[in-house]
Parts: sequence; structure tokens; C-alpha cells
Amino acid sequence: MSADHTIYQKQGFGATMPPKPPYGLLIVDFINGFADPGRFGGGNIHAAIECTRGLLAEARSRKWPVVHTRVVYQDDGADANIFALKVPTILSLHEAAEGSQIVPQLQPVGGELVLRKTNPSAFFGTSLASWLSQRSVQTLLIAGCTTSGCVRASVVDAMCHGFRPLVVTDCVGDRSLQAHDANLFDMNQKYATLMFRDDALDATAAFEAQLS
Amino acid sequence: MSADHTIYQKQGFGATMPPKPPYGLLIVDFINGFADPGRFGGGNIHAAIECTRGLLAEARSRKWPVVHTRVVYQDDGADANIFALKVPTILSLHEAAEGSQIVPQLQPVGGELVLRKTNPSAFFGTSLASWLSQRSVQTLLIAGCTTSGCVRASVVDAMCHGFRPLVVTDCVGDRSLQAHDANLFDMNQKYATLMFRDDALDATAAFEAQLS
Amino acid sequence: MSADHTIYQKQGFGATMPPKPPYGLLIVDFINGFADPGRFGGGNIHAAIECTRGLLAEARSRKWPVVHTRVVYQDDGADANIFALKVPTILSLHEAAEGSQIVPQLQPVGGELVLRKTNPSAFFGTSLASWLSQRSVQTLLIAGCTTSGCVRASVVDAMCHGFRPLVVTDCVGDRSLQAHDANLFDMNQKYATLMFRDDALDATAAFEAQLS
Amino acid sequence: MSADHTIYQKQGFGATMPPKPPYGLLIVDFINGFADPGRFGGGNIHAAIECTRGLLAEARSRKWPVVHTRVVYQDDGADANIFALKVPTILSLHEAAEGSQIVPQLQPVGGELVLRKTNPSAFFGTSLASWLSQRSVQTLLIAGCTTSGCVRASVVDAMCHGFRPLVVTDCVGDRSLQAHDANLFDMNQKYATLMFRDDALDATAAFEAQLS
Repeated sequence: MSADHTIYQKQGFGATMPPKPPYGLLIVDFINGFADPGRFGGGNIHAAIECTRGLLAEARSRKWPVVHTRVVYQDDGADANIFALKVPTILSLHEAAEGSQIVPQLQPVGGELVLRKTNPSAFFGTSLASWLSQRSVQTLLIAGCTTSGCVRASVVDAMCHGFRPLVVTDCVGDRSLQAHDANLFDMNQKYATLMFRDDALDATAAFEAQLS
Repeated sequence: MSADHTIYQKQGFGATMPPKPPYGLLIVDFINGFADPGRFGGGNIHAAIECTRGLLAEARSRKWPVVHTRVVYQDDGADANIFALKVPTILSLHEAAEGSQIVPQLQPVGGELVLRKTNPSAFFGTSLASWLSQRSVQTLLIAGCTTSGCVRASVVDAMCHGFRPLVVTDCVGDRSLQAHDANLFDMNQKYATLMFRDDALDATAAFEAQLS
Repeated sequence: MSADHTIYQKQGFGATMPPKPPYGLLIVDFINGFADPGRFGGGNIHAAIECTRGLLAEARSRKWPVVHTRVVYQDDGADANIFALKVPTILSLHEAAEGSQIVPQLQPVGGELVLRKTNPSAFFGTSLASWLSQRSVQTLLIAGCTTSGCVRASVVDAMCHGFRPLVVTDCVGDRSLQAHDANLFDMNQKYATLMFRDDALDATAAFEAQLS
Repeated sequence: MSADHTIYQKQGFGATMPPKPPYGLLIVDFINGFADPGRFGGGNIHAAIECTRGLLAEARSRKWPVVHTRVVYQDDGADANIFALKVPTILSLHEAAEGSQIVPQLQPVGGELVLRKTNPSAFFGTSLASWLSQRSVQTLLIAGCTTSGCVRASVVDAMCHGFRPLVVTDCVGDRSLQAHDANLFDMNQKYATLMFRDDALDATAAFEAQLS
């Protein structure tokens, strides 16, 4: 255990937070622009998309509420925000842009919430928290990209809004593996439970079974 | 330049975002409990507190709006939240607890906003954004701790709420220097301008001078 | 039925929204300053406070999550907001002020959430929505004052946050009976279910019984 | 003066709040569905739309930030919320629906913010407050419909977010004139400045002139 792990443990961080049903699934920004290393993609994002296919299929089979997010700015850029000052290329993602469409592997189906967003967190400037509350969600499984950007921001906000974040580690990806790892470390210590997909599916099934 | 820097630059991240007046100063959680390595402190937090003394003095002299935050839970823990599930020791910080008081070096004075919070971001569950908007703040200088926790969460939210975050790098600290560095990297690429204190004071003065 | 009722009905407003468990109880601003006709009280507020005693007792006996709000500004008025521009006398309500304490009849007990607020809605600038979500609340019973002010604002926000508002009509009061009635009309058409206290207690019990 | 006016005045409500530049203009839900008395319209809504033409023209000429809102639910109703439980017909307003398009008289032009919303307040679940803050707006002129619904909810939230609401009384309308009047009364006492269009344009020009 590193010196860093030691101080976190000594100060009381990183407690275990078991999944609690009902569950929901949030898939953050798996859109064409982030799947493409030539635009906003790269690193382990492609692998995360492929891994999320099975997660989404299982979420649907278990009838969990499912949410997808897309980055969408106005065609004329009238809603350019501070984020767009730091990352001006992000303004290329507008309603009809190919880069702003959800990847073919993870197309939404009827009854799933599809949110437009212009900030890192899927909760900011959207009705996501309300939608999850209305469905009594207690634990939110999170897939998507990037780990160090919109995933982390959504995890922090999920926690603030009263939901237990469960980061599915092989279903989140980042253009930088170093940033991916550093942010998983932070989230594990302070904000979320981290599990591989198959473990997450097993654990959530086990807790659901206890209820019935 | 590392491979990571290269991909961020190529994709359009990390643009320069100059400070724009009016300014405000946010000091995040410089309370006794986070100043003490035996409780939630350590790393470079003590140095950051000392550096912030001069920043706060200058902010007052320039008549910037100043905000301090404290972590405060209800005495009976009735407001225990998801954050407290991950970090149960945080519940020791309540209204009258010594650990929840602002450090002696940075005591608030009349007219400064002092916010109680129970989540990482200084904006969540508070009226901070409204208070800054009412004062026309455009750029928010940010000091405090921890860099990888409440500072970063506040930076992301500052940006979402329409304010340019300016992280004063020698006035923010973390129990883990590795987490400190990793989070400064992320914030620089995506969310904020980073400057040492003296550079920040120079730059903000220069932009203010242009206006008069 | 008045002409107004007719157009609302014809356009599809005012649908029936049955209470759905789990329940929670929100008591808005039953503090000394609003109980006193010489300060912010009057009208049917006193009667509403008396009626709320039985509601609170029953909520505790059923182990519902209970929330109380108080209006509290900083001692130095540093957090004076737009509301305080329209109602400058409101700044007299600060942490230790007698007017800002909850009325003796409805004192909170351990485990109940007590929120400070400076805006009409109990949700704005507080963590109320998160707290209710974490407890899976689906229907929020609302008592308090004033019907045309903080109660209505809280009802609108409860709905936006995904909770079914149930206004307990004899447990909400206003300094103006005309404003009381006009706002009950609006809430009934667009935002909430309205019931007298005893009907609300019967109805919620009936729906809870269906579940067990 | 009525007895009601007297108690409000005696308790310190209804203070004068002069417009303070910079200004912005919010036009709430002037969409075909609310212009049509056969769907959600009626009362004085048509007159308010006509009056808003001159207001919008002047706002553009003065280069104020301008915002329009539309009610838009997902095509499949996956985002049906509590509001839609009370007003089920509202779900007919989706992206391509004729009823959800802004009225021909008030078509947005490039650079104006156009927001989709599913709740009464133009601020809830949108980035409106952030957009106004980024533009330093201090006073928000508000036109639209309905006075007793989405206008009032937006006024309350504008105030909470730190903006001075200026309700342009001949540019807001309601299907019920009684509800229109009752809500203007409440807003005047507690939340907003009320002015006729021509007075508002004169007053805002006068305050702007003081600055230059």
C-alpha cells in the first residue's frame, strides 16, 4: 500500500458502500465524437464502449431506468459557455452533427432518457436527478467517457444528489490512461464504489435477490 | 511534453482563458480539521493556508467579494449523506466542533459570506452562485483544500455556473501530493486557469486597470 | 363551476394525482416571526400551526422523514439577496433571533432535518431534494406558511424535483386569506394534490396498506 | 387600499426595487400551443404576444441578451414528470410538434438562447442562470405565459438566482384573468418589479444612461 493510500485509510476515507436497489444506469457521452481518437477519443474509450454493450443489455433485461447523454450545443453557438472557452472544439457538437450522435453499438430504445448537455456533469442543467428520484433509484451505475471529465463530474453530482455512484471500471474510458487511473483513485477514496462490470452485475443481482 | 499533453493539445483542450473582472475570492474548507494532519490534513495544506493569508489581504484591499466555506453537519447527523457513507469521519464536523471552525489565520470579517456545506462543491446546496451573480463576478479565484476534493468540485461547478475559475496553485493543498498534481493537470486542461498567487494578483490587477 | 374552472378542465389541467408511498413531511417556516401577526404572521397562520401538531405527531408515529425550515440570514446581512430587496424586514431573521426559532408547538426532535433558508423555496440553496431522494420519498406532504409564498414555491420545486406534492390545506396558512385561496387554486390545477389533514392521513395510510 | 395591501405594507413587503443594468430579456413559452385558446391559451395571452413584439424589437436594438423557452417532451414521453401527471395533455408538446414551436411573431434570431423545458420555471433543468451570469445580467425583464404558471415560477427562480425580476405586465398573459391578477399581486409584494412595457423601456433606458 502506498503512502497515499495509508493516509486516506488512516483519516477514514474509502469506506465500503454496498449497492442498494433500486438501480439505474447512466451512460455518459458515448457519442461518435468521443469514440474517435481523431476528435475527442483515444485511450481505452473504445474498449469501454464494447464492454458497455453487455451492461446495457443486462440493464434492459432487468428493466432498470437507463439514461444516455449527448453533448449538444446550439447550431449558432449562442449557448457557448465557460467550458467552451477552455475547449473551443467542443462547439462542433450540435444537434445534427454526426459527432454528437450516440454510437451505433449503444443506440437508445423507447422509454430511455436521452439528455442534451453542455457541461461535464450529466446532472447540471438537466432534469436527471428529478428523473431518477421519481423512479426511486438508490444506486446509479455509471459507464461512459471520459473518466477524468464527464464521468467524474457526474459521479460527484450523483453523490451530491443522494444516489450511490457505482463506477463500472471497464465501462468507463479516457483518452489518457494516466488521468483514468488518477481519477479512479479519487472516486474510490471519496465518492463511489468501483467494480468491474461482471462483478457489478453479480453484486446488484445479489442485493436485489435479498429483497424478494 | 508528455504523450498525454500532446493528445489534449491536438484535440483542442487547454485553451488560454484570461481573467475577466469583476473578481471574487472563494476559500474552500480551510478549517481546523483540514489543517491538522492527524484529522483530514497533511501534504501541502499548511503551506497553502500560509500562502492564502496574503491573497485574502489583497482581496480585501481590492474590495473583492470574499467567500469562506466550512463543512458542517447537524449535531445529530440527521443530514448524513452519501459523502458521509464514503467518509464516515466527516460527520465529526458540526456547528460547534473545533474542527469545523475556520483557521485562525483566515478568520472572516463582516460582509464576507460564510457558507456551511456537506458536499464537496461549495456551490451544491448553497446560494453561492446566486451571491456571485448578484455581484456580477466573472472570474472566481479559488484557494483552499483539498485540491483533489472540494477544490476541484468547486472549480467544476464554478465553470458550470458561468464563472471563470482561476485556481491559485500555491493557495490550494492536498493531503496527497500525487492527487494534487493529477487534479491540477485535469483542471488546467478542461476547467480553469492556473496561476501562482503573485502572478494571479498581477494579472487581475492588469485587467482591472484596462477598464479604468 | 366558474368559467375559469371550465377552461382549466377543458385544457386538461387538474388531473387527480394519488399519493404514492414512501411519504415525507415538510413543515415550511413555522417560526416565531411568522406566527406573530405583528411581524410576518396573521390571517389563518395560527390555526395552521395548531392543526400541524397532529400531523407532525402522526408523521413521527409512522416514521416518515420530517423536515423543518427556518429563515436565517447572516448576522451581518452579508447574504442579503434579491428577496431582501423586496422585503427588507426579513433580514431581522438571523441565527439567534427569537423570530427565527421554530414555534414551541412544533419543536424538531433528533433525526429530523432542520434547514436554514434565505429564499422562498425550501429546496433552493439547500440539500433538501437530495435528502428526500436518499430516503426514496415519492410524495411530500407540505404544511407551513405562507401559502402564497414559501409554501407555493416549495410545492413547485418539490414537483420539479420529482416528488408528488400533497398540500395539507388546513396545515398551511397565509396573512391574506385571499392570497391563500388564489394560490390553493393554482396549486390544485397545476402542481399538487390538496387534502385536509385528516383525509390526507387516511389516504396515505390506505396506500401504504396496499403495499404490505 | 385593501386590508390585504395594508398588512403587506405594515410588515415591510413590496419595497421598490429599481432596475439595475445590465439587462436581459426572457420570453417564456410563447409557443403555438399556448397561443391557441383551443389548446393551452386563452384570456389575455394573445394580447401579450402582440405587445411583446415591440419589446423584443427594442431588446434587440439595445443588444440585450435574449432568451426564449419552449415546452418540449421526448417523443416517446420517457421524460414524463410530475407536472405531466397533473397536466397530461402537456406531453403533446414534443420537438417537432407544431404546438411546441415559437409563435411566428416572435421567432428567435441567431445569438439568442432557445431553451427546451419540461417544468414551469425556465431555470429548472436548464443552464439559464449560468448563461445570464456569464453575461453579467442584473435585471431580467420577463414576458410570456402563463402569468400564474411558468412566468411566476420563472420570476421566483430569477430572484433566487440573484437577478432582479422585472415583470412586463402587458407582455405576460394567462388563460384566466383572475389568476393573472392574483399572481401579479403576489409578485409585486414579494418577488419582482412590475411595469407596463413602455414604462419599463423608459426606466431601463434612464438607468443605462446614468452609467454612460
